[in-house]
Amino acid sequence: MQAATEKGAITAEHIDAFRSIVGESNVWMDEETLRHYAHDETEHLNFLPEVVIKPRTALEISEIMKICHHGYIPVTPRGGGTGLSGGALPHLGGVLISTERMNSILEIDERNLQVITEPGVITEVLQDSVKERGLFYPPDPSSRGSCFIGGNIAENSGGPKAVKYGVVKDYVLNLEVVLPTGEIIWTGANVLKNSTGYNLTQLVVGSEGTLGIVTKIVLKLIPLPKYDLLMLVPFRSLEQAGEAVSAIFRAGFTPSALELVEVDALQIVSRFVDSSAVPITEDTAAHLIIEVDGNNLDTLMGDMEAIGELLSQYDIGELYFADDAQQKAELWKLRRRTAEAVKIAGYTIEEDTVVPRAELPALIRGVKELGKKYNFHAVCYGHAGDGNLHIRINKPGLSNSQDDPQMVEGLRALFALVKSLGGTISGEHGIGLIQKGYMDIVFEEAQLGIMRQIKKAFDPHNILNAGKIFD
Amino acid sequence: MQAATEKGAITAEHIDAFRSIVGESNVWMDEETLRHYAHDETEHLNFLPEVVIKPRTALEISEIMKICHHGYIPVTPRGGGTGLSGGALPHLGGVLISTERMNSILEIDERNLQVITEPGVITEVLQDSVKERGLFYPPDPSSRGSCFIGGNIAENSGGPKAVKYGVVKDYVLNLEVVLPTGEIIWTGANVLKNSTGYNLTQLVVGSEGTLGIVTKIVLKLIPLPKYDLLMLVPFRSLEQAGEAVSAIFRAGFTPSALELVEVDALQIVSRFVDSSAVPITEDTAAHLIIEVDGNNLDTLMGDMEAIGELLSQYDIGELYFADDAQQKAELWKLRRRTAEAVKIAGYTIEEDTVVPRAELPALIRGVKELGKKYNFHAVCYGHAGDGNLHIRINKPGLSNSQDDPQMVEGLRALFALVKSLGGTISGEHGIGLIQKGYMDIVFEEAQLGIMRQIKKAFDPHNILNAGKIFD
Repeated sequence: MQAATEKGAITAEHIDAFRSIVGESNVWMDEETLRHYAHDETEHLNFLPEVVIKPRTALEISEIMKICHHGYIPVTPRGGGTGLSGGALPHLGGVLISTERMNSILEIDERNLQVITEPGVITEVLQDSVKERGLFYPPDPSSRGSCFIGGNIAENSGGPKAVKYGVVKDYVLNLEVVLPTGEIIWTGANVLKNSTGYNLTQLVVGSEGTLGIVTKIVLKLIPLPKYDLLMLVPFRSLEQAGEAVSAIFRAGFTPSALELVEVDALQIVSRFVDSSAVPITEDTAAHLIIEVDGNNLDTLMGDMEAIGELLSQYDIGELYFADDAQQKAELWKLRRRTAEAVKIAGYTIEEDTVVPRAELPALIRGVKELGKKYNFHAVCYGHAGDGNLHIRINKPGLSNSQDDPQMVEGLRALFALVKSLGGTISGEHGIGLIQKGYMDIVFEEAQLGIMRQIKKAFDPHNILNAGKIFD
Repeated sequence: MQAATEKGAITAEHIDAFRSIVGESNVWMDEETLRHYAHDETEHLNFLPEVVIKPRTALEISEIMKICHHGYIPVTPRGGGTGLSGGALPHLGGVLISTERMNSILEIDERNLQVITEPGVITEVLQDSVKERGLFYPPDPSSRGSCFIGGNIAENSGGPKAVKYGVVKDYVLNLEVVLPTGEIIWTGANVLKNSTGYNLTQLVVGSEGTLGIVTKIVLKLIPLPKYDLLMLVPFRSLEQAGEAVSAIFRAGFTPSALELVEVDALQIVSRFVDSSAVPITEDTAAHLIIEVDGNNLDTLMGDMEAIGELLSQYDIGELYFADDAQQKAELWKLRRRTAEAVKIAGYTIEEDTVVPRAELPALIRGVKELGKKYNFHAVCYGHAGDGNLHIRINKPGLSNSQDDPQMVEGLRALFALVKSLGGTISGEHGIGLIQKGYMDIVFEEAQLGIMRQIKKAFDPHNILNAGKIFD
C-alpha cells in the first residue's frame, strides 16, 4: 500500500511562480474558466480546479511540476476534455494543466513513415494532415473531432478501425514525458522494434496521466489504403448479430471496421442526425456496420460479396451498401454520434466492457438480464469486431453511476460477468475516477500492489492525477 | 539506486525441498547437466548454475520461488537456450529453472482466434499447430526450430515477418506469471483491447525474465494468408540496398518480409547450406530478400512486378524469383542459417542495432568506418524493413565482446551512432548480460532509476535474473 500523502495548499507565491513560468495570460482563476475545466464527458460529474495553467512547452511543465512536487500540490493533466471515465477531472482541486496550446504537428517524416506531434493536436487534424501525404494514422475515437492525441495516449484509445489496425498503443513508438518530479525523459527510441530495457513507452500509454505528462509523441504511420467499402446489415436478433461477428473472422476476413448498434440506439441517434438514407425496419433488432479497405477494389468487392453470403445464413434484412462518399459519411456520422445522442436521451452511464469476441452473445444476453434485475435500461453498441461493447445505461432519475447503491451492485454483477467471460472492464475509455471501485473484480491485491509501486516510482509525492485508476 | 542485496547460499535443505516439489528426477546437479545449462548462443560465454530444476507447473515454480525469495537465492529462468544477449546465463550461479517440461499447447481457440500455451513450446511447433487450423502466429526468430515461445516473450522477439505483422508484443494478450515472491498473477485479460490499469502484460513482455517467470501465454492469432511470393534482388552497392528499403515503403507497399544480407554473409552461409539455386555474381554487394503475402495471387503478382520496377532505378543485377515451395524454403534456409554460419566462421560478436529504416544507409556506412578505426571486420544482415540491422563482428582472436577494451570502445562508438540516428541498441535480442554496460548510451539515470524501481516492485529481494539489463 502506498502511504497516504499530504495535500499541499496553493499559495499566492505559487500562483506568482506559475505566472512567471507561463506568463500572466496563461494562468486562469476566474470562476467561468474553472467551471469549464470542472467537467468532461463523464456522466454528470463536476469538480472545480483551483487554478488552470496553459503551458506551451515541456520545459514550462517541468518547472510547474517541480513546484507542485515540492509543495505536494495535486495536478490534473487535461487534453480535449472528451473522456468518459473522469480521467481529466480535478477531483482533488489543485492545479489543472491543459495541453491545449501545445498543438503543433512538429514533423511528418515521410522517409520513415512517422509523425512527431505535440499532445494538444486534435486527433482528426492529425489524421487529415498525414492523409494529405498519403499516410494513415488509424486510431480514432468517436470524439476524434475534438479529442486530443495526448488524451488518446493517456487512455490507449481505440475506435472503429482498431479491429484491423490496432489501438493507440500499436502506433506509439516513443514519448517525451515530464515526470511528476519535473524531470523530462524520452521513453524509448523512434524505431519499429525495441528490446532495450523495460517498455516504458507501453507503460505510459494507457496510464491515464498518472505517471507523467506526455509532451511529444512519435507515432508510426502506414500507407493509406486506396479504397474502402461500407455496408449495413440489419439483424432481427441482437444475439445473432453478436454471433455473426466472430463467424466473419473465422471465415478468414479481417474487416477494417465491424461495428454493432442496437436498434434502440439507432432510433435515438436518428432524432439528432439525418438518417433517412439508412433503412430501419420494424423488425430490426440491431445493425452490423461492416467496412473493408485495401488497395484492390475487385478484391474488396469480392470480400464484401462473400461476407454478405456468409451472413445470409442468419435472420437478416436487406443489405444496405453506402454507395458514395456522402452515404458513407452519413452512416459513419450516425455511428459516431451515438454516444452523445443516447447520453442526451438520458443514458448517462456508459460502460466500456470488452470480451473475447465470440463471447459477445453471452455478454449481450447478460446485460439484458441484469437490466431486469437491477432496474435499468441498457442500449448496446460498439466495436463488436474487437469484442468491445459499449453499454449505455438509463436508470430513471440517476445521472451518476456512483450515486445509487443498486446501480453499483448492478455494475459489479456486470463486470463479474465480463470477467467470467475472459474479458475486462475497460477496452478503450480507461478506469479514471468512476471505474476504480471495480478494479478489485479484475485484479487481486498482487497486481494492484505492483501498480501502486509503479506509480510511486514515477510519482513519489503522489501528486499527478492521484486517486485515478486506484486509490 | 536499488540497495545491494545479499546472495543466499543453497543448502542441502533447499535441495531436499526442491526435490519434494518437483520430484527427485527433476533436480539436476551433475556436472554434465550443469555444463549444458552454462551457455546459450551468446558469444562464447559460460557460467555454471549450482542446480538445475525442471518444474512442470506454475504451482511448482511458485513453491521454488518462495524458497529462493526467503533465502535470497539467485534464480535464472531458461527457455530454449538460443538467446544472443546472455539473458538465460546463470552468471551468479544459484538455481536455474528450465521450462522445457512445460511444453503443452493448452488450447487453440478457433472461435476467438487465440491460443493458450505453456512457455516451453518450441516456436515452430506452435506455428505449425495453429497453421493446421488455418491460423497464423507470425513472429518467428531465426531460431524458431529450437527456441521456446516463453523465451520469445522474454526478449520481445521479432523475425522476418515483423515488418508487416509486428513483433511478439503485438500478439501477447495475457500472461500467467509467477512473481519472484512466489505469487501467481495474470497480467491482463484475453481481449484485443484493454485500458484497465497499467499495462503489466507489455511490461513483462521484453523484461528478459527479470520480473517474473511466464507460465501461461495467451496469444492473438490471425487468419493465415493464402499465398506468398518471394524474390531476391542483388545490389551492387550495400548502401543503395539500404536506400531501396525505405523507397519500397514510401511507394505504398508493405512486404511481409524485407531482409538484407551482405554478400560476405551470404558467401559464408553458402559453405554450410546448399545455395546453388541462388545467383551470387562477382559484383554483388548485398541482396534484398522481398516477400509479399495475401489472399489474392493476382494482387501479389502485381505488387512484386511494381516493386521490381521501382528497384530498377538502382544499380541491381537480375531478379531471382523463388518459383516453388522448395526454392522458397532454400532461400529462407540460407537467410535463417546466416547467424549460425557467420558465428562458426569467427564472427562471434553479434549486435542487434535498430534505427528508423531510412537511416539504414547511414548506419551501414558508419559500421564500415568504425570497423576500420577499431580493427574489426563486420558483416551486416537482418530485418531491413524494420530498420533492424544485425552486425556480426569478427575481431581476430576475440570470442567475447567484453574481453577487449578496444572492442568495448568500438561498440560504444557504434551505439552512439545508432542513438544519434534515432535508434537504439537492441531491436529483438534484448540487453541481457552483454549489452547492459551500454544502457547509459540510450538512457539517462532518470529512466534507469525508474526501471530499477519497477524491478524492485516485482522482486524486492532481487533474486530473479538479477544483474541482467542493468545492475
